Amino acid sequence: MKQLLLIGIGPGNPRQITLEAVDALNRAQVFFVLDKGAVKDELLQMRKDILERYIQQPGYRLVQVEDPQREGAASDYVGAVHDWHHKRATLYARLIESELAEGECGAFLLWGEPTLYDSTLRILDLVQAAGVGIELEVIPGISSVQALAARHRIPLNRIGEPLTVLPGRRLAEQSRIDNLVVMLDGQCAFAALDDPELLIYWGAYLGTDDEILIAGPLQAVRQQILQQREQARARKGWIMDTYLLRRPL
Amino acid sequence: MKQLLLIGIGPGNPRQITLEAVDALNRAQVFFVLDKGAVKDELLQMRKDILERYIQQPGYRLVQVEDPQREGAASDYVGAVHDWHHKRATLYARLIESELAEGECGAFLLWGEPTLYDSTLRILDLVQAAGVGIELEVIPGISSVQALAARHRIPLNRIGEPLTVLPGRRLAEQSRIDNLVVMLDGQCAFAALDDPELLIYWGAYLGTDDEILIAGPLQAVRQQILQQREQARARKGWIMDTYLLRRPL
Repeated sequence: MKQLLLIGIGPGNPRQITLEAVDALNRAQVFFVLDKGAVKDELLQMRKDILERYIQQPGYRLVQVEDPQREGAASDYVGAVHDWHHKRATLYARLIESELAEGECGAFLLWGEPTLYDSTLRILDLVQAAGVGIELEVIPGISSVQALAARHRIPLNRIGEPLTVLPGRRLAEQSRIDNLVVMLDGQCAFAALDDPELLIYWGAYLGTDDEILIAGPLQAVRQQILQQREQARARKGWIMDTYLLRRPL
Repeated sequence: MKQLLLIGIGPGNPRQITLEAVDALNRAQVFFVLDKGAVKDELLQMRKDILERYIQQPGYRLVQVEDPQREGAASDYVGAVHDWHHKRATLYARLIESELAEGECGAFLLWGEPTLYDSTLRILDLVQAAGVGIELEVIPGISSVQALAARHRIPLNRIGEPLTVLPGRRLAEQSRIDNLVVMLDGQCAFAALDDPELLIYWGAYLGTDDEILIAGPLQAVRQQILQQREQARARKGWIMDTYLLRRPL
């Protein structure tokens, strides 16, 4: 049997990794690093640094692959994601067959929390369903949502109330926005909200030296977030950001 | 200035703690351990074990206090919680004034994630608002929600869909239940749901030697969960459990 570990490595601060994840890094012989489209050298280097910092026995192998692109403008979003997942499942199955020997242990290093808005687990389920014999293990990691709340020193939920987490593209359709965390919002959906009551707690590159935090009434800080976000993205070539929207009591 | 660290120590597995949390444990001179009502010796011992395991310099102080009780049956839930928080704020303010010297660093050890359905941060905000000079820092921890998803090897969200997290008492009022995580459900609200479609992924004592995992169609496994939950609770004197409800695609 081949073993595969999905290791949550936190949002970017190398100390925001669990001891369980460090143990898991030391169990794997092969690390799969898949990057999307644009070359994200810095993100790759951050993962290499984690391996170098925490692995005690040298000799592990790093398998670096270009992830297939998703059709960005498809009208059928879920259909396009499914197609993309099937392409990736084919690629991952080939990698597992060619790069991982029977009895070996491979690992995927995943930013944040492996079960929250990350598709690797879903894709490996497809790989298993296609008959590739693998044993999966998931190691939780600190998500950017948790880093956001910690750095702003705010509770994610209000007393006894629900918390909603959703991707940016689902924000516009929400009938009532409160205690809502938005992830994966490359289009800045918050900028279209005109509700004068809303407060925003925003953060980018959480846990890294480039961390930016902005909080306040959405209408008052919206421009500041848009400007700083665009400047940072242009300077670094990529951005990871998230935010919480809340109403004052 | 007095420093206070709110340290997330994960759901129960002592390896599910971050290196940032271990660093924080080593910065504090005083640890506040507050327990609710019934004496939970085992939960106290688990925290003492964490301190002994990870703190390098002995000589720290442990301040153990009985937390005030909340009025369980109050008809005004939020009002009762506010009253309870104010009582605790008064207690915490007294503890900070009497047990922590200027320039010292104190810490609260919090199960799971400090910003998710935990009131300590809110109470310390009240303490600050009352004029007690403290500097707060929050250290994220792996929540039981993440441990649940990892152990069941399931994504928390479905592709592009929202995820809702809520306390058990809010479950009955949900108009449509899907991709929903329930915490703090001492009353087993899931048992009242008669929807034949729902799947449940349930876990108790996640990350510990007593961990129990049950998954399946809610109507098929409901009795099994109720029985095992009651047996375990009776045997151990306490239970911490959480679950995810989902519809098949």
